[in-house]
Amino acid sequence: MTRDLLLRDVRPMGGPPVDLLIRDGRIAAPGTPPAPDAAVEQGGGALLLPGLVEGHTHLDKTLLGMGWRPHQAGPAIIDKIETERRLKREWGIDPARQSARQVAQSVAFGTTAIRSHVDVDDVMGLEAVEGVMETRAAWADHVSIEVVAFPQSGIVARPGVAALLEGALRLGADIVGGLDPCAIDRDPKGHLDVVFGLAERFGRPVDIHLHEPGALGAFSLELILERAEALGMQGRVTVSHAFCLGDAEPATVSALLERLARLDVAIATTAPASRPVPPVPRLRELGIRVCAGNDGIRDTWNPYGNGDMLERAMLTGLRWNCRRDEEIAMALDLCTTGGAAVLGLADYGLAPGCWADLVLVAAESPAEAVVARPPRRLVLRRGRAVARDGVAAGPGGEAAQPTG
Amino acid sequence: MTRDLLLRDVRPMGGPPVDLLIRDGRIAAPGTPPAPDAAVEQGGGALLLPGLVEGHTHLDKTLLGMGWRPHQAGPAIIDKIETERRLKREWGIDPARQSARQVAQSVAFGTTAIRSHVDVDDVMGLEAVEGVMETRAAWADHVSIEVVAFPQSGIVARPGVAALLEGALRLGADIVGGLDPCAIDRDPKGHLDVVFGLAERFGRPVDIHLHEPGALGAFSLELILERAEALGMQGRVTVSHAFCLGDAEPATVSALLERLARLDVAIATTAPASRPVPPVPRLRELGIRVCAGNDGIRDTWNPYGNGDMLERAMLTGLRWNCRRDEEIAMALDLCTTGGAAVLGLADYGLAPGCWADLVLVAAESPAEAVVARPPRRLVLRRGRAVARDGVAAGPGGEAAQPTG
Repeated sequence: MTRDLLLRDVRPMGGPPVDLLIRDGRIAAPGTPPAPDAAVEQGGGALLLPGLVEGHTHLDKTLLGMGWRPHQAGPAIIDKIETERRLKREWGIDPARQSARQVAQSVAFGTTAIRSHVDVDDVMGLEAVEGVMETRAAWADHVSIEVVAFPQSGIVARPGVAALLEGALRLGADIVGGLDPCAIDRDPKGHLDVVFGLAERFGRPVDIHLHEPGALGAFSLELILERAEALGMQGRVTVSHAFCLGDAEPATVSALLERLARLDVAIATTAPASRPVPPVPRLRELGIRVCAGNDGIRDTWNPYGNGDMLERAMLTGLRWNCRRDEEIAMALDLCTTGGAAVLGLADYGLAPGCWADLVLVAAESPAEAVVARPPRRLVLRRGRAVARDGVAAGPGGEAAQPTG
Repeated sequence: MTRDLLLRDVRPMGGPPVDLLIRDGRIAAPGTPPAPDAAVEQGGGALLLPGLVEGHTHLDKTLLGMGWRPHQAGPAIIDKIETERRLKREWGIDPARQSARQVAQSVAFGTTAIRSHVDVDDVMGLEAVEGVMETRAAWADHVSIEVVAFPQSGIVARPGVAALLEGALRLGADIVGGLDPCAIDRDPKGHLDVVFGLAERFGRPVDIHLHEPGALGAFSLELILERAEALGMQGRVTVSHAFCLGDAEPATVSALLERLARLDVAIATTAPASRPVPPVPRLRELGIRVCAGNDGIRDTWNPYGNGDMLERAMLTGLRWNCRRDEEIAMALDLCTTGGAAVLGLADYGLAPGCWADLVLVAAESPAEAVVARPPRRLVLRRGRAVARDGVAAGPGGEAAQPTG
């Protein structure tokens, strides 16, 4: 039993002001009287949102706090892989330290759940998974973190990685990752046999990066869907990026969407402005779960990003040309409820009984919060204040301020 | 003669720290000794950039400070035109008041020059031009503003607008505007004859909105280029948006680019994430002047935007996939030097003799300024402080803080 918390004068999703009672970390039923010793927070009429959900990032590789480091990699995915393999050691990108920096920043921005792909490769072995697990434990009261064992450099082409992936799962990674089965490993069957083989043996979900464009990406996606179906993995597979759904032939895309919906395979997008993207409104009409993520922020892949999921919602809104409030609500939904559906978060939302993972923002409406992205006034996790006025209270109570 | 200002310990474009003397509003030659009574500003090693240039906006129509107003218009351009015509009166979008709000915000963000399209139509007549001219006069010490007489609702299809455009030029509008000669007026020859006729009679430059896609936009662009050539208007025509350069046939685009370069016709882009865009790196290789702009911010056309040209530089960088520092420098250049070249600003930049229109930002490098967009520490216009720590000092000395 923790002390009751009474959130006064807050506007859930921009609706009329209410007082919200939080008991034992959950939203109490309306009308429940607070205990006499209840703590009180004055909401001042602020907008109340459920905690933001980061659906796709790379906590282990951010360069936050390491000074400005000009981007070095060439344009192709393989350039980025090779450059990062070199710089991990050269720059000393420590996964434990760096993931803690990004998590602090995410918490300050109101994120209460994160899915992070974490590199498993023949350069670092399991060091990145161990580092992120350390951060996950230290910040467990602030944010929930799902770890994807992610073969960033490939599996088949890099001896030992399959065994390392298994090691990562034994260490506590939650999800089996994968990457461009054709383009990187040059052996889609070999790659996917390992990924889905591990998923089957360990009973774990799958989340695969798929950057491959057009017909090639569509082919890889078919291979993924065949395996999801054969293994009965409905509801347990996510495909990240899926650019091919934005530039393959329309008939091919239609067939893929129908199959994604039938197998309840989710899509994670980072809403990139310079790449084709899946037709998200159509996906949602079909009932396909979709979440958004910041992808890596300030890392050797990409110099942009600050971890703010309201900024990602803005970029999502701009990418799909969302202008009406209900369209902007879709962009925000990818960063809240949609994210929760992909991550499989239980008891998420603003209904009685849900966990009190909440964000207060000085905005009139959810749409304004997306457009203006004001500092977060208060962030609650399981009813406990974990950030205030844009600054997170770290695990030791120290202030952890966003750096960019 | 104004008092000398010594800017100590600033890093021009991220280079080594220097002291910069400003005399009579201009950057003095290196080694010039400051007058004994010189004022001093401590730069603290901050990054020094030339003033940001807003190359395409609509000062008269922002809803800043009017509360959140859900977007009402449908997806087509004509829906936006009709909706705005209705709401201008219904909501009381006062051009003088609203333009002052946006200008205050722009100044706070370090913008020292603006080109604003200003509606000239049969709903408001010249009221918007008068309102923006009022703001321009009031804020003349803070920022330079170019006014484009912009026939937002068309010319040929709206009786009286041609005469109003002429009236706007007589009132002091600097540039003749135009809009989608085929799609809106349905009479490209008629539309462009008025636009270029006024430009010729009044000796004014032209800046035409061209949203038309593909082959249609390419056709309109050819008509524009024919007139620019016939009238000898080299260097005096800008085409805004020019989406067709992103989605017309490659051979058509190549021919258009060659002609744009030969006639020194400039391109203004807003780097939209959801539309095809001109191949900006190629344009710059060909020597074509390119600037960026925020377009309308928080208006009945588009709910997004805050007026920050560093944020627009970030969106530009994301749109053209700029990752290396030199690529991000291109995105920033569109918002600084490129903008100055399109607006025709004299004595712009960081060289001795240039106007001291300057921005100080706490960032290691120009690229980091684009990525992180920190509050502007100090904004100088002609050597005078017009904003500090993200807050503009208004014409009456009042603090004018960004609202979003």
